[in-house]
Amino acid sequence: MPEPETAPGTLRPGGRTARVRAAVLRAAEDALIECGFDGIDLAEVARRAEVGKTTVYRRWGSPRVLVADLLDDMAEQSVARAETGSLDGDLRANARLVVRTLTDERQGALFKAVIAAATGDERTAEALHRFYATRIAEWAPCVTEAVERGEVPEGTDAAEVVRAVSAPLYYRFLASGDPLDEAVADRAAHAACCAARAGAYVEPRSSLAE
Amino acid sequence: MPEPETAPGTLRPGGRTARVRAAVLRAAEDALIECGFDGIDLAEVARRAEVGKTTVYRRWGSPRVLVADLLDDMAEQSVARAETGSLDGDLRANARLVVRTLTDERQGALFKAVIAAATGDERTAEALHRFYATRIAEWAPCVTEAVERGEVPEGTDAAEVVRAVSAPLYYRFLASGDPLDEAVADRAAHAACCAARAGAYVEPRSSLAE
Repeated sequence: MPEPETAPGTLRPGGRTARVRAAVLRAAEDALIECGFDGIDLAEVARRAEVGKTTVYRRWGSPRVLVADLLDDMAEQSVARAETGSLDGDLRANARLVVRTLTDERQGALFKAVIAAATGDERTAEALHRFYATRIAEWAPCVTEAVERGEVPEGTDAAEVVRAVSAPLYYRFLASGDPLDEAVADRAAHAACCAARAGAYVEPRSSLAE
Repeated sequence: MPEPETAPGTLRPGGRTARVRAAVLRAAEDALIECGFDGIDLAEVARRAEVGKTTVYRRWGSPRVLVADLLDDMAEQSVARAETGSLDGDLRANARLVVRTLTDERQGALFKAVIAAATGDERTAEALHRFYATRIAEWAPCVTEAVERGEVPEGTDAAEVVRAVSAPLYYRFLASGDPLDEAVADRAAHAACCAARAGAYVEPRSSLAE
């Protein structure tokens, strides 16, 4: 499902630098999943990635830079949005994708590790925010097209509708610990759709707040 | 705003044991806010609380037990629900309270620290889930009373409506990093209210899913 990896502008696509980055990021991901952020050791990452220690220290320098680069890579590889033809269908596809990701053993552990790391480090937090901004921008057209189709009111804040789909899923995942399954995903999508139809996400709110 | 502290059944209310617990939990809270979970040292907590080290080691034994007890204490002190007479009003009061808590410098740092700690420790996660379960149960009557008043359909899942109010606020706080303010709180409450009125939180969903 992920789109083909796109190496950022500073790398030669498919070249040695890109291959090194891919191997190092994969090793960093493994370390995060197994040990969390505090378990990341650059020398160990280099060993696992079969890359010279000097390369890893010179290129990334610290675990937090490495994790920020991993988050940027995750954003680049984020799954393309759905185009089912209805807002309910698109949002449901989005919610189910989020649930599949968060309940996947590896991906779930990875998200917990990076979110925990972001609570204690500003640079990691910025990379995390960029990841979500990219994801929200990818899915926002589902809402703008629903506006064009007349499914939801003019002026609906597309990003906020996309956030509203993920929010109850992350709340369960990180805070309340309530179960996460397909039914929960569908309900999150349907609730966001209902609220959007009712104009709850129209900006400026003043005219529709009550 | 917090209700008066209620010592749990195993303590003599207001006695020395309760005073020791309060001092130790306050010191643990300070340590979490300043250094995060990994910065908690029982000897240092005892010193700050002006309590004997032996007492702290015997009673709590480890940082994770101490943090779990802090979360149980936070649940006991959780703010009483609003009774404004309308679902929109009650949910708005709830959302504004959550935003005030998460944007408060001390409380925000405390929540980030315990949520981060819960990602890596099952016992802390269970205490965190108890905290949210207590909070959700406290606010659920706002929804059941709205059902009785006919504001939202019979069979509305009250807990899920309460979760839906907090969810977009926590999503911004922990994941996307988008701003948290009173307008965001009001919109979260209003969206949950709209979705509830539309029947999005009625169980079983099958009859109202589409």
